[in-house]
Amino acid sequence: GTAASVHRSWEHVKGSKRAENTVNPIRRLVQGIDVKPNPALAKIDLSIGDPTVYGNLKPPREAEEALAQLVLGGTVNGYPPSMGVLESRRAVAEFFSTPLAPLEARDVYLTAGGSGALELALGAVADPGDNVLVPQPGFPLFMTTAGNLGIECKRYLIDPDRQWEANLDSIRAAVDDRTRAVVLNNPSNPCGSVWSAEHVQKVVELAAELKLVVLADEIYADMVFPPNTFVSAAEASRDAPVLVLGGISKRYVVPGWRLGWVLVHDRHNILEHAGMRNALNMLTMRMLIPSMLVQAVLPTLMDRSSVSVQQNVNSLLSTLQANAMLCVQRLGRAPALQPLEPGGALYLMVRIDLDRLGFRDDMEFTKALYAEQAVFVLPGQCFEAPGFVRIVFAAPREVLSEAMDRIQQFCEAHSS
Amino acid sequence: GTAASVHRSWEHVKGSKRAENTVNPIRRLVQGIDVKPNPALAKIDLSIGDPTVYGNLKPPREAEEALAQLVLGGTVNGYPPSMGVLESRRAVAEFFSTPLAPLEARDVYLTAGGSGALELALGAVADPGDNVLVPQPGFPLFMTTAGNLGIECKRYLIDPDRQWEANLDSIRAAVDDRTRAVVLNNPSNPCGSVWSAEHVQKVVELAAELKLVVLADEIYADMVFPPNTFVSAAEASRDAPVLVLGGISKRYVVPGWRLGWVLVHDRHNILEHAGMRNALNMLTMRMLIPSMLVQAVLPTLMDRSSVSVQQNVNSLLSTLQANAMLCVQRLGRAPALQPLEPGGALYLMVRIDLDRLGFRDDMEFTKALYAEQAVFVLPGQCFEAPGFVRIVFAAPREVLSEAMDRIQQFCEAHSS
Ligand SMILES: Cc1ncc(COP(=O)(O)O)c(C=O)c1O
Ligand SMILES: Cc1ncc(COP(=O)(O)O)c(C=O)c1O
Repeated sequence: GTAASVHRSWEHVKGSKRAENTVNPIRRLVQGIDVKPNPALAKIDLSIGDPTVYGNLKPPREAEEALAQLVLGGTVNGYPPSMGVLESRRAVAEFFSTPLAPLEARDVYLTAGGSGALELALGAVADPGDNVLVPQPGFPLFMTTAGNLGIECKRYLIDPDRQWEANLDSIRAAVDDRTRAVVLNNPSNPCGSVWSAEHVQKVVELAAELKLVVLADEIYADMVFPPNTFVSAAEASRDAPVLVLGGISKRYVVPGWRLGWVLVHDRHNILEHAGMRNALNMLTMRMLIPSMLVQAVLPTLMDRSSVSVQQNVNSLLSTLQANAMLCVQRLGRAPALQPLEPGGALYLMVRIDLDRLGFRDDMEFTKALYAEQAVFVLPGQCFEAPGFVRIVFAAPREVLSEAMDRIQQFCEAHSS
Repeated sequence: GTAASVHRSWEHVKGSKRAENTVNPIRRLVQGIDVKPNPALAKIDLSIGDPTVYGNLKPPREAEEALAQLVLGGTVNGYPPSMGVLESRRAVAEFFSTPLAPLEARDVYLTAGGSGALELALGAVADPGDNVLVPQPGFPLFMTTAGNLGIECKRYLIDPDRQWEANLDSIRAAVDDRTRAVVLNNPSNPCGSVWSAEHVQKVVELAAELKLVVLADEIYADMVFPPNTFVSAAEASRDAPVLVLGGISKRYVVPGWRLGWVLVHDRHNILEHAGMRNALNMLTMRMLIPSMLVQAVLPTLMDRSSVSVQQNVNSLLSTLQANAMLCVQRLGRAPALQPLEPGGALYLMVRIDLDRLGFRDDMEFTKALYAEQAVFVLPGQCFEAPGFVRIVFAAPREVLSEAMDRIQQFCEAHSS
């Protein structure tokens, strides 16, 4: 009935199912960790994918100074256009454009971080009841945001014994008539892997065969350690249309600035014809957009000719590579651990011989490590990687070195 | 079928229905305005709800300087917590807390502007197929974001002949068993109206009777012209739970900084019991959050004891009130126009005697005014207010004065 006579009570007020489906597995698992760290030892947290945590890694000073000047100049306080400021979108387009994968400002949507890019792209390609393919192990935000949008996540496997390359058969097996896109994440969180150009090629060709839009989360683009090289899915794709998701959070050490992008690489006008550009435009009407302040500093930040910015990125990468090598070498000597050498990003996956250490699963390992050695890592379960733990190697060298000592002692103490 | 043998073509790739339902009426109508302004006259734009457009209105200098220092200090580049930084949430809670409507940090969610607050609150209270009541005339973003979320907007009327007070019978008539909340917007966009304490009281009491959560969009809170006074729906409500939506965009002249909030005023623990706090928490897991930079400047900005910030707000209000008075007086002398004196915000609604001027509707009026006098206002249709136009009175006095002259000449030329 519509009349106000409808007998109503406050009981009918309830939180939405949409919210219930917005699940963050890390938060649930981490909140469940009820152990106290060994009080005799300083706590060492290697669980957070935030390069600023220890203060050792810094954004390009030039960008900070340019942003401060913009704030004081008082000319960038107004509403940006819903897709983003033209000049800033142009800077992003010029930064990433290549002969094989050309970009113009119209192909760039500025978003509230990589998280905003994911929400915008998923919202444009799929409706409730549709599904997208996501990697397993993978970045939990894919499930969190897809679930919020009523989109099912069907998993495809990436193989720890083959540099976390995608198992192509598992992609074929997962596709059904409601599958809208395949999500790629290279370089990977949580695996720290960097796919070869050949493998990226194979995956995008399969996507083309299966007629899947590619959602390529490349927030760690160019954050690779030599001899690894980064090849964007857009660069490799001749036929499959690609929406590249990216942002400034990791490469410029500013996750708190909250700016990302969706890059539209449309092959054969498939997305144009599908009304995908219009879909993206309409979704931006909600004005869930990045600040005008940070948009205005993009041309300074994303300037390949800026020596100081490039130096900052290079020193970041050499620091991260040295940190990764230290962890791989030290953990390689610990009983019952197999570190899988990362090719880039911030993350090292370590396979645990649970039986040898007498632990039921990676959660029990994580809790014991924290209780005994006050070192906190994330259990692989957070990423659907049972039997692994993820270590963030962005901490200062001496902190990492201390942590590796403690992990080694821990494994020696528990190893039969 | 799930096998990859599913014959697939690129034809099945299409933009989501979700995106199709994300409609921004202003954009569609304004894009349809195909007239050229009179080249002999400088264009005057009085259509955009952005107080920074002409550069005459400025944010508190103290806040700009504090933000620049924070950027240079390099300590606020990391991820904020998903609900927002505790100290910043506390500053917002202390700013708005009153004996009758107390607030703590746990009641405050920091969002990506008022637009982010609306998306968070609507997403928490309603699922696809539910509806919420929205004012007519009203702010189009309510329809844009609700449509995106699959939530139907049922209109209740606000009455131009009674200071845009809500027609309570129209609220009763609109409620049905899928109605989750009633959206209030006081002070109002587009009407510039400010409800009396008594009227706010009546509306929240009706909400309680009908068992509706109140979503009170109060982004223009405190932006009222004496003798009008602003009373929050939270302050007036004894029984109905209230989610107040707000932000810094208008009051501090920084719509480009993109920070807002949802304030949880839970009466009798109705929202707690309904799992609404949990729903809000889970929705923040998508990390569509405001920058750490602007969060960190909130304690400076939202400090009632800061003389310079308060002076800035007071001078803003006296300027806006003077501008509003100028427009009301001048348009009052123009044939066929009835300006409805605003009590606050940035907006003046003007009722047009279309017959007397020989125009079919408010769109035709708007196009002719732009073509002949190069003055651009928004047709009432954008806000479901046929026969009206909305004027933003945030421009410098001399610009407004020139625009009022031209409107008067325009009406005299067309008036029979
Ligand atoms: C794979 C991946 N995608 C997206 C994001 C989100 O990036 P942002 O912090 O810019 O929202 C992250 C950050 O951890 C990530 O690891
Ligand atoms: C009534 C109303 N609510 C919300 C908003 C959005 O505010 P913000 O720019 O902070 O997202 C506006 C801005 O125009 C508004 O007028």
